[in-house]
Amino acid sequence: MPLTLPQFQRSIEDTYGAKDRQRGVAGTFMWFMEEVGELSAALRSGTPDDRAAEFADVLAWLATLANVVGVDLEKAVQAKYGGGCPGCRRTPCICDRAEKP
Amino acid sequence: MPLTLPQFQRSIEDTYGAKDRQRGVAGTFMWFMEEVGELSAALRSGTPDDRAAEFADVLAWLATLANVVGVDLEKAVQAKYGGGCPGCRRTPCICDRAEKP
Repeated sequence: MPLTLPQFQRSIEDTYGAKDRQRGVAGTFMWFMEEVGELSAALRSGTPDDRAAEFADVLAWLATLANVVGVDLEKAVQAKYGGGCPGCRRTPCICDRAEKP
Repeated sequence: MPLTLPQFQRSIEDTYGAKDRQRGVAGTFMWFMEEVGELSAALRSGTPDDRAAEFADVLAWLATLANVVGVDLEKAVQAKYGGGCPGCRRTPCICDRAEKP
């Protein structure tokens, strides 16, 4: 069975929740940024395995940050992206290329 | 049914894949970083709805980046976090607090 977003977020909560809350939002954001930096390096010069591992780390720290502030990642993406592009409401997106996203 | 990680990554591919590949890795990383900055602002002073929307954006751009470089996010997190903490292999994690993660 493919992993659902709630299952993933809960597994990160079970593994790191207690530590995460002790560290707080700002400290957790610093760890998240460290992983973002490592992703940047892996995108520039990493092997495919390096890249996959760094994507996993960024996603795990994003889930941890969401846990610390009580955001449900699945509800958040369903609310914003569940109906296609939030700009043009189409799939595929037909927004101008200079616009977000 | 809760959204699975592969479903989410595919929906981002369907919506933005063509644009994403034209933009390339470096340009897509810049958009991703812009969203990370907005998440930082929302964590500092946003409403709960602002925070949820910024988490959704960061996750969407992370999925887009993964699509551009051909990384399967679910396989990546299962490989790294599927057996508990990659440091101590326990749930909850018992790594020293100064260590990653």
